[in-house]
Amino acid sequence: MEEMNFESLMSLVEKGDFTLLRNELSEMNEVDIAEFLGELDRDVMIRVYRILPKDISAEVFSYLESEDQGDIIALISDTEINKLVDDLFLDDVVDLVEEVPANLVTRILRNASPETRKLINTYLNYPEDSAGSIMTNEMVELHDRLTVQEAIDHIRRTGIDKETIYTCYCIDNSRHLKGTIDLSDLVFNDKDALLREIMDDDKQLIYVNTQDDQEHVAEVVKHYDLLAVPVVDNENRLVGIVTIDDILDIIEEETEEDFEKMAALLPSEDEYLKTPVLVLVKNRIGWLLVLMISATLTGSIIQNFEDMLAVITGLTAAIPIITGTGGNAGNQSSTLAIRALALGEIELKDWLKVLFKEIRVALICGAILGAANFARMLILHNPGGMEVYITVSAAMFIAVIIAKMIGCMLPLLAKLLKIDPAVIAGPVISTLVDSLSLLAYFGLAKAFLI
Amino acid sequence: MEEMNFESLMSLVEKGDFTLLRNELSEMNEVDIAEFLGELDRDVMIRVYRILPKDISAEVFSYLESEDQGDIIALISDTEINKLVDDLFLDDVVDLVEEVPANLVTRILRNASPETRKLINTYLNYPEDSAGSIMTNEMVELHDRLTVQEAIDHIRRTGIDKETIYTCYCIDNSRHLKGTIDLSDLVFNDKDALLREIMDDDKQLIYVNTQDDQEHVAEVVKHYDLLAVPVVDNENRLVGIVTIDDILDIIEEETEEDFEKMAALLPSEDEYLKTPVLVLVKNRIGWLLVLMISATLTGSIIQNFEDMLAVITGLTAAIPIITGTGGNAGNQSSTLAIRALALGEIELKDWLKVLFKEIRVALICGAILGAANFARMLILHNPGGMEVYITVSAAMFIAVIIAKMIGCMLPLLAKLLKIDPAVIAGPVISTLVDSLSLLAYFGLAKAFLI
Repeated sequence: MEEMNFESLMSLVEKGDFTLLRNELSEMNEVDIAEFLGELDRDVMIRVYRILPKDISAEVFSYLESEDQGDIIALISDTEINKLVDDLFLDDVVDLVEEVPANLVTRILRNASPETRKLINTYLNYPEDSAGSIMTNEMVELHDRLTVQEAIDHIRRTGIDKETIYTCYCIDNSRHLKGTIDLSDLVFNDKDALLREIMDDDKQLIYVNTQDDQEHVAEVVKHYDLLAVPVVDNENRLVGIVTIDDILDIIEEETEEDFEKMAALLPSEDEYLKTPVLVLVKNRIGWLLVLMISATLTGSIIQNFEDMLAVITGLTAAIPIITGTGGNAGNQSSTLAIRALALGEIELKDWLKVLFKEIRVALICGAILGAANFARMLILHNPGGMEVYITVSAAMFIAVIIAKMIGCMLPLLAKLLKIDPAVIAGPVISTLVDSLSLLAYFGLAKAFLI
Repeated sequence: MEEMNFESLMSLVEKGDFTLLRNELSEMNEVDIAEFLGELDRDVMIRVYRILPKDISAEVFSYLESEDQGDIIALISDTEINKLVDDLFLDDVVDLVEEVPANLVTRILRNASPETRKLINTYLNYPEDSAGSIMTNEMVELHDRLTVQEAIDHIRRTGIDKETIYTCYCIDNSRHLKGTIDLSDLVFNDKDALLREIMDDDKQLIYVNTQDDQEHVAEVVKHYDLLAVPVVDNENRLVGIVTIDDILDIIEEETEEDFEKMAALLPSEDEYLKTPVLVLVKNRIGWLLVLMISATLTGSIIQNFEDMLAVITGLTAAIPIITGTGGNAGNQSSTLAIRALALGEIELKDWLKVLFKEIRVALICGAILGAANFARMLILHNPGGMEVYITVSAAMFIAVIIAKMIGCMLPLLAKLLKIDPAVIAGPVISTLVDSLSLLAYFGLAKAFLI
């Protein structure tokens, strides 16, 4: 498929031929229209938005960046806002209310129906990143005493605006979730059958609670290959669904957070180029300061051995090679441990298996690296002679073992202490590995060379 | 929702009550049954697998780990294999053939229908990780001259086994993809309407080519919020679809690869605990060796200044603090640049914007870190006195600027050279940043302190 090419559309905008533009746009996918609008200047964007066919404008709106959404809300009439809020899915309205400035929030709420307003307020009260805060209420609910024909008629009457009609949710008089039924099962079943008889009512009906964390919701959808998962309240009443397109966004968001934490950054949801310099500084300086100060430990170890380093040639030059190799080796182990934890491949109770595995890997890697280092120093005629070569190689061997043990155990320890394993990755482990490796190195040097 | 509890099932296995076990299992979700089978010993697992109701056993099989799948294939009869291959979705059969040992592949192919065998071979010939290699052929194809009623009848006759029937694909006599139609549009439309008239045939019909990389396929599905995307061959004929559950797996796989590459690991698809020690060593030792050898550069810079370091107290102790801070600062920038590239937030043409932004961030971060370092040395009464404190702080300021410039530019350079930006992250950048920072540091020291 080709990249979208907006040039011909742009030339229509410049020519002011909005009739032809409208025709062209109404042939396009809503996602692409939103992308095109995003490239226009504010005033032109709003003019073009207004000429969109009424049946697609809400969907296009939902794909716009929140900035552009705010611009549109600020400039359209109350009647238009009322129509828009009505046409949008509830989860998109909630996202909108969370993103736009306060004065626009007031306008949106004022122009929503009392029912929608109440729902928006309920959603806003769920904990951040909970199932309740990300769900939508646009699902098909069917009473479990309906027949197939009655269900199809009901969907035909009410289903058009739902976020998905492929999975319908069966409830009883008290709105308790009793089972699910796929649209295909309705289409292909005897029209007189009762939903209660043909619905999927596994002992293990799959659902999440409004209070569950969005990461858990994503896990469930992924684990069971679902297109949507029902959300129930504490009384087990159906209150919403979360669909797979939102799950994709959540997975992406959570992954980015892990990348950022592992690089000693505060997580941010903003796009890189749109983030102001001072916000970037704020996200970075905290960890940089903490790690710089904690590196004092490494510095003071060197300081204690400065006399020895000054006397024995060749020792100082090896410092960054030993700590660098230790840092890389530890980083490998911590990354694998953090990801295996995140994906559920390992659990706390596996700690001994993980440790034993890493020690064996470390012994082999350490031996190879130590030998390679010895060869390197020999070939380059490094200063210091054989004793120094052997000391440095042995220190490297020990550094790799220390690094891999710390690298695999700290994420598990973090998990045990209910800290996010990703935040103590890379840089934090380096500081610890650096100090311990240097202590081993200088200890060996003192024993063998003085 | 509760974690699955297999204890009661286990006790049924131990008691040998397979009748009750079968009843319990037939009430459960297929994903959970597969998980339960995975916890059993091989022989018991196969016994339990065999008592599963016939209508769910293929689906349960598709959720098993490939090892367990191989064990089952090895022990069931040819007739059972024939039935299984017939019941599985084609993409699951292809995955199976790719994973099991060669003798089992022969058995599978021998017991597949000639038609399936031909399809399997075609799929195996698509490039690895291409749309062709991950697609399935189980989609609903409808001729665009059918009426709605004819289409529904056709789906009713042939659709039950399809991977999805919610989006159907309209083709002409030559199997060219002409449009798509949702099941809901069929259910709710006039029964005499022609598909050709009501199908979705946007100018921008969304599809991918068999040769497209799976990452591109994932992008398209994510970008357009699709549940499945059609795959066409070079003549634009419909040959398959890729569904969103496979897209989720691809996104996960690609993300893990990025994590691994950024930690100087060779990417691996195996679960951590199941990967043999020697494979773990193989995935790690290559980069460790390369980085250790390249750290020689840093070592030789120190070696050149060893006389100076031996004379001026306090200089050596600051080495790991300067290089560590530079490494962390560079790592932040490279991670952000790599992820922004991966997510399409920045492109090559943005390089000047990125560089300018990072330089401004670096000036502020560097100034703060330099000042903090000066205070740190002052408070701790570090050896060397004011001149050394100022030199070290100035070197730290410069190191941060060097690190952030290199950190943001190298991923873009890699992209320009068509190298994966993730592989030159963290460790590679550290080596370069270490060397340049130390050169700056020793240069300053030479100028001010000697």
